[in-house]
Amino acid sequence: MKSSEFRTHAHELVDWMADYLEKVDSYPVRSAVAPRSIIRQIPSTPPEEAEPFDALFRDFKSVILPGITHWQSPTFFGYFPANSSPPSVLAEMLTATLGAQCMSWVTSPAATELEERMMEWLRIMTGLPAEFTGVIQDTASTATLCSILTAREVASQYAVNQMGFPPSMRFTCYASAEAHSSIEKGIKIAGLGRESLRKIPVDREFAMVPGALEKAIEEDRQRGFTPLCVVAALGTTGSTAIDPLRSIGEICKRQRTWLHVDAAYAGSALILPEKRRMADGVELADSLVFNPHKWLFTNFDCSAYFVKDVGALVRTFEILPEYLKTSESERVNNYRDWGIQLGRRFRALKLWFVIRSYGIRGLQEKLRHHLALAAAQAERIRSSADFELLVPVPLNTLCFRYHPAGTDDTETLNRLNEALLEQVNRTGRAFLTHTKLNGSFAIRMVIGQTEVRESHVTQTWKVIQETAHTLPT
Amino acid sequence: MKSSEFRTHAHELVDWMADYLEKVDSYPVRSAVAPRSIIRQIPSTPPEEAEPFDALFRDFKSVILPGITHWQSPTFFGYFPANSSPPSVLAEMLTATLGAQCMSWVTSPAATELEERMMEWLRIMTGLPAEFTGVIQDTASTATLCSILTAREVASQYAVNQMGFPPSMRFTCYASAEAHSSIEKGIKIAGLGRESLRKIPVDREFAMVPGALEKAIEEDRQRGFTPLCVVAALGTTGSTAIDPLRSIGEICKRQRTWLHVDAAYAGSALILPEKRRMADGVELADSLVFNPHKWLFTNFDCSAYFVKDVGALVRTFEILPEYLKTSESERVNNYRDWGIQLGRRFRALKLWFVIRSYGIRGLQEKLRHHLALAAAQAERIRSSADFELLVPVPLNTLCFRYHPAGTDDTETLNRLNEALLEQVNRTGRAFLTHTKLNGSFAIRMVIGQTEVRESHVTQTWKVIQETAHTLPT
Repeated sequence: MKSSEFRTHAHELVDWMADYLEKVDSYPVRSAVAPRSIIRQIPSTPPEEAEPFDALFRDFKSVILPGITHWQSPTFFGYFPANSSPPSVLAEMLTATLGAQCMSWVTSPAATELEERMMEWLRIMTGLPAEFTGVIQDTASTATLCSILTAREVASQYAVNQMGFPPSMRFTCYASAEAHSSIEKGIKIAGLGRESLRKIPVDREFAMVPGALEKAIEEDRQRGFTPLCVVAALGTTGSTAIDPLRSIGEICKRQRTWLHVDAAYAGSALILPEKRRMADGVELADSLVFNPHKWLFTNFDCSAYFVKDVGALVRTFEILPEYLKTSESERVNNYRDWGIQLGRRFRALKLWFVIRSYGIRGLQEKLRHHLALAAAQAERIRSSADFELLVPVPLNTLCFRYHPAGTDDTETLNRLNEALLEQVNRTGRAFLTHTKLNGSFAIRMVIGQTEVRESHVTQTWKVIQETAHTLPT
Repeated sequence: MKSSEFRTHAHELVDWMADYLEKVDSYPVRSAVAPRSIIRQIPSTPPEEAEPFDALFRDFKSVILPGITHWQSPTFFGYFPANSSPPSVLAEMLTATLGAQCMSWVTSPAATELEERMMEWLRIMTGLPAEFTGVIQDTASTATLCSILTAREVASQYAVNQMGFPPSMRFTCYASAEAHSSIEKGIKIAGLGRESLRKIPVDREFAMVPGALEKAIEEDRQRGFTPLCVVAALGTTGSTAIDPLRSIGEICKRQRTWLHVDAAYAGSALILPEKRRMADGVELADSLVFNPHKWLFTNFDCSAYFVKDVGALVRTFEILPEYLKTSESERVNNYRDWGIQLGRRFRALKLWFVIRSYGIRGLQEKLRHHLALAAAQAERIRSSADFELLVPVPLNTLCFRYHPAGTDDTETLNRLNEALLEQVNRTGRAFLTHTKLNGSFAIRMVIGQTEVRESHVTQTWKVIQETAHTLPT
């Protein structure tokens, strides 16, 4: 493809992109395709000869687009969002064009230094203590794995990195029963074994019970284990429950145990001073992760990982082969040594574009708008005769269910709500997901889309209610 | 930013992007900025109020661009390239706009099914055996870690995932002394300890000596270790040496040891039938990784990881919490269970655009052109009175040094070549990196840029020669 053709096609794409973002709410949110219906439309062997761009773009629209679940739709209420925004997309265009691989300072000094500054900006914006230093990871899964590995090395005095697990060391880890699956996955990868994970009970609001944590740690110590790390959730995935950080942090200090805070989704809310109370005690943590790619309008992937002891992080990961040695190594950050991967995309640019385009005030307004929409929707559910909230709503994630009068059996309600969710999603007018809370199937609605407005929430609520009333009970 | 503004600014960016790609060879290849000169230009606190896009774009050009090392420059001969191409950039524009998070089939069926098909295309294009199934990972570091973890779980019958390392199991790993640093890093992450890595001697061409491998495995077994996995390099990072896969594979079969092939850079060359001999014996491997983001014109990050036993891979990583359960789980791929991260970008689209835009024939022509340029440059070095090649050139990576008559002391030559490399890079007209081979400092020149032409090579050669002759010996 010649440069002149690139220019022409890129302009074509920009018009399509702008049109798409304008009318994204007109697409069925969840793709309605049947399994394997896309792959059957793609030739099973690669083309021998070059094809014109028009053919590619046509196939993109006719074959790929129907198989896309529209994460940027304002009625995408599923999972946690992976929010983008126009300035973020603009930055991604530049990042792709520069095509820089930012493993070391020298491989693009601006990428490294902008990343350092953007992590400072995020730290300031979220009110995290000045002892925290940030680095961009791809996902919270990776950041949590980095934290577990650093805890492992600090506790073993870097012996595991050097010689594997000494037979005398039997480590244990702690997280609430509501903690994210990435914690168990990280524990497995780190060689600790899932049996080392103690799932600490939660209270009625699904937050970790600190007394139960300390009891578990002490019992493990008596049984000869070495308590390694605690992962506290600032906003669980199921219901954004907030683990009590100060109590947990004090236990970790007493017990000399590493504390990692998984704030993947809810961390963005710390840009609101009125929400910082939920992070009370965060200064006791050793590390924290939150994802600007979830609720800060920055394209996936972009995870902000903060640590207190950068030296321990780097010592856990650094490797310096000859072909990576550069003369600046002593004075600059080489982020390849701050995580799992050697290669790194230039991810700081989109953060810079987003933060400057909205300003702190603009970002705060967006989040406050989401919280207000969620509060109003919570009130609608509370005042509804046949729906109920299953947990409090600390932020903008609603866990609720249809509960018609006279139907009280859990299994029946679960089946009813599973059917309701599937039928709502099948309309294509909104997409919601689910969780289970104490065995009860809960429909989960996260109101945090970049362009969500009140009408999107109320229309979705109408679809939910109308669909519910058509269900045989 | 309103949609109309996005449209306007995106068009502005496209013109800048096309201009950039047209004149990328006019930029100093390696950024010449001093450490911390970029960060000092970025305010230390985030802006309270929104800023107009014009300010962002202006700062991008004046502050960021001077700090970029231009990986897409045709005279970027450093490391291994992270090649992009116009169709790949176009695809990245669409990927960023869709902003889909592709962890599961349902979160965008087209992303999952296109990935499955693209991995089949790559398998066919590279002539890999049909038993291999592919999945996209972000980097080869991650893919190699996945392989080591899968080997660990298969060898321990999934006991490490379950309960950590049984004290009776002391695993050992094997790679050549020239193997990539990501192998040692992966071994550390997996909890095996760097001492478990045996660095097997290499021959004069820096390829692993199979006899030494088998001897090391047998000695370890006699000493009570469990030989776990061998990582063979199809193209080492230093000099693209090719480990003899068939001999190594036969040893692994005999010794019942896992075999992973790190073909990160050289794997792309397997699209050339005349180069497939170097992969003779690859059917004996358990897994292989190569990076389309290195030498197949696809934006970083995009690593193709192939495994024989998908069941073992998935069993190593899968975790199924309630909020990720979907009714299709039985019939579709959920790639979140095929690796470390839960979240995944839609990376298959750029592969589809690249492969169709060039066609197999177009990609082959590009690679053959690179190989021809490298062969011609190797000949120039060989016929030069005061330069010498330090290793054979199996592909398009040249390791050479300046060796003026009468200067034979290794330390002197090393200092001379280190100075030469730095001075060449300082001109901004080309960028090369280095490695050390048997203690000798080698200038390393990889001729694989998307748009590299003969004139770029010959002009760079001229700069190198002229600079060398100005050095005091």
